[in-house]
Amino acid sequence: MIEKIHHIGVAVRSLDEALKFYSETLGLPVQASATVEEQGVKAALLTIGGSEIELLEPLSPESPVGRFLERKGEGLHHICFQTPDVAAELEGLKAKGVELIDQQPRRGLAGMICFLHPKASRGVLVELATPVVS
Amino acid sequence: MIEKIHHIGVAVRSLDEALKFYSETLGLPVQASATVEEQGVKAALLTIGGSEIELLEPLSPESPVGRFLERKGEGLHHICFQTPDVAAELEGLKAKGVELIDQQPRRGLAGMICFLHPKASRGVLVELATPVVS
Repeated sequence: MIEKIHHIGVAVRSLDEALKFYSETLGLPVQASATVEEQGVKAALLTIGGSEIELLEPLSPESPVGRFLERKGEGLHHICFQTPDVAAELEGLKAKGVELIDQQPRRGLAGMICFLHPKASRGVLVELATPVVS
Repeated sequence: MIEKIHHIGVAVRSLDEALKFYSETLGLPVQASATVEEQGVKAALLTIGGSEIELLEPLSPESPVGRFLERKGEGLHHICFQTPDVAAELEGLKAKGVELIDQQPRRGLAGMICFLHPKASRGVLVELATPVVS
């Protein structure tokens, strides 16, 4: 079951430049920011209604977001759908033969997450997430 | 003021193929579908929480979505933010020197809408919309 859009990921060359638009100009509040070494990104999360915009600046050109910028330039990178049970959702999609990037949920910025393969979703990189209640 | 993500636009080659994933596999309910000649698209709207996924199939290769597919392939096309007063929001952005596609709000699928220029928003095509209460 998909509950809502958890966040939209946007690949940017400079977090500071991007925040000028999304935070200063549009007025979206910054909820958190973090450097996630294992994903090779500096990220900022902005609140928009019950969802978030996740701005992603690569730490290196070889990181996944770095390679995306090289290939496609700045812009919409992925969409994350919130589900109450990411493991069950993933098993259901596997049973339907959906192509996946992650075979098992793993810890991510949004909680327990997994990525589907863009081939499954008409070119869209789709993430599923179950927020972890701390 | 930006209230929430109204919808995410996804450019697809075939609405029927895309619905197999978003509706049949993911289980998102189809809320409406329409052919909008003046925008050169066949569209389907799927409900996801308080937002929507807007699947867009071009009516011709020369339409804006047709040209997007040619240039970038299938995938995330634009993001639409809901605001209570699109005209006031647009004036505010103009005053801040934000680059725009539409100088005035116009009627769109989501109500009264306007598009900002992707240059303003780090490569993201941003739409603003105020739903029209019928």
